[in-house]
Amino acid sequence: MDKLDTDVIVQIGIIVKDAEKSAAHYAEVFGIPKPQVVAIAADSFARTDYRGKPSDAKGKAAFFDLGPVQMELIEPVGAPSTWEEYLRTKGEGIHHIAFRTGDMAGARQFLQSKGMETIQSGGWDGGQYAYVECTPQLGTILELLHFD
Amino acid sequence: MDKLDTDVIVQIGIIVKDAEKSAAHYAEVFGIPKPQVVAIAADSFARTDYRGKPSDAKGKAAFFDLGPVQMELIEPVGAPSTWEEYLRTKGEGIHHIAFRTGDMAGARQFLQSKGMETIQSGGWDGGQYAYVECTPQLGTILELLHFD
Repeated sequence: MDKLDTDVIVQIGIIVKDAEKSAAHYAEVFGIPKPQVVAIAADSFARTDYRGKPSDAKGKAAFFDLGPVQMELIEPVGAPSTWEEYLRTKGEGIHHIAFRTGDMAGARQFLQSKGMETIQSGGWDGGQYAYVECTPQLGTILELLHFD
Repeated sequence: MDKLDTDVIVQIGIIVKDAEKSAAHYAEVFGIPKPQVVAIAADSFARTDYRGKPSDAKGKAAFFDLGPVQMELIEPVGAPSTWEEYLRTKGEGIHHIAFRTGDMAGARQFLQSKGMETIQSGGWDGGQYAYVECTPQLGTILELLHFD
């Protein structure tokens, strides 16, 4: 791979202190149904790896669409995770933009060859994700998503 | 207005230290043409207002599309501005998500009634913008865009 196999943003991830509260504010401001808050990284599919070590950190998340892009509000639960690290060091804010790849290993390897390291990875019942630290190059963390 | 007149994200704005350098990284990672870097808030249309006072702060910006969303890389030039403040206090990162409103005054007034204050506003040859501080409620600054 000499470039990512996609240039289509599919998701924006925002770290918040309280997912329920922020979800209610989004519903009020945009006039949309209040999104449900669900547990993430909380089951046997999670297999969370954070900076090279297994972690049992979890999150509470709310998913909803604003036009063509899915929004993900993430409230960190426990540590260590990139979600908890972001909230602790930067406060509430936009943590990542996400792209869907057909070749997770190839995409991670390509980004690594450009100096962009995976800092957290894991899965869910249906796919895998990897957060890649691209802030010095792209001004943000990228999330790679692969659906089985 | 009892909700915003749009729920469609049209732009993601990222604060970077060096717009030329970051634009080149985006071109390399996504295999897209390197976007041109242009001056913003640098002409007579700018009329920049930052926290209630005129400011002659400027920026360098690069615009390009990643799928359905426009990306804006912004390198702060001079001060004071929300761009310079963000870089100084949080480092490189995603500064705002933008929405296009048909009623700038109404949208600003609605958000203000919910405790979300405009922190910077201005214009260009063709429209006006307002950055509204929504981080405590929505986890990010919102940008309202109005095209003449």
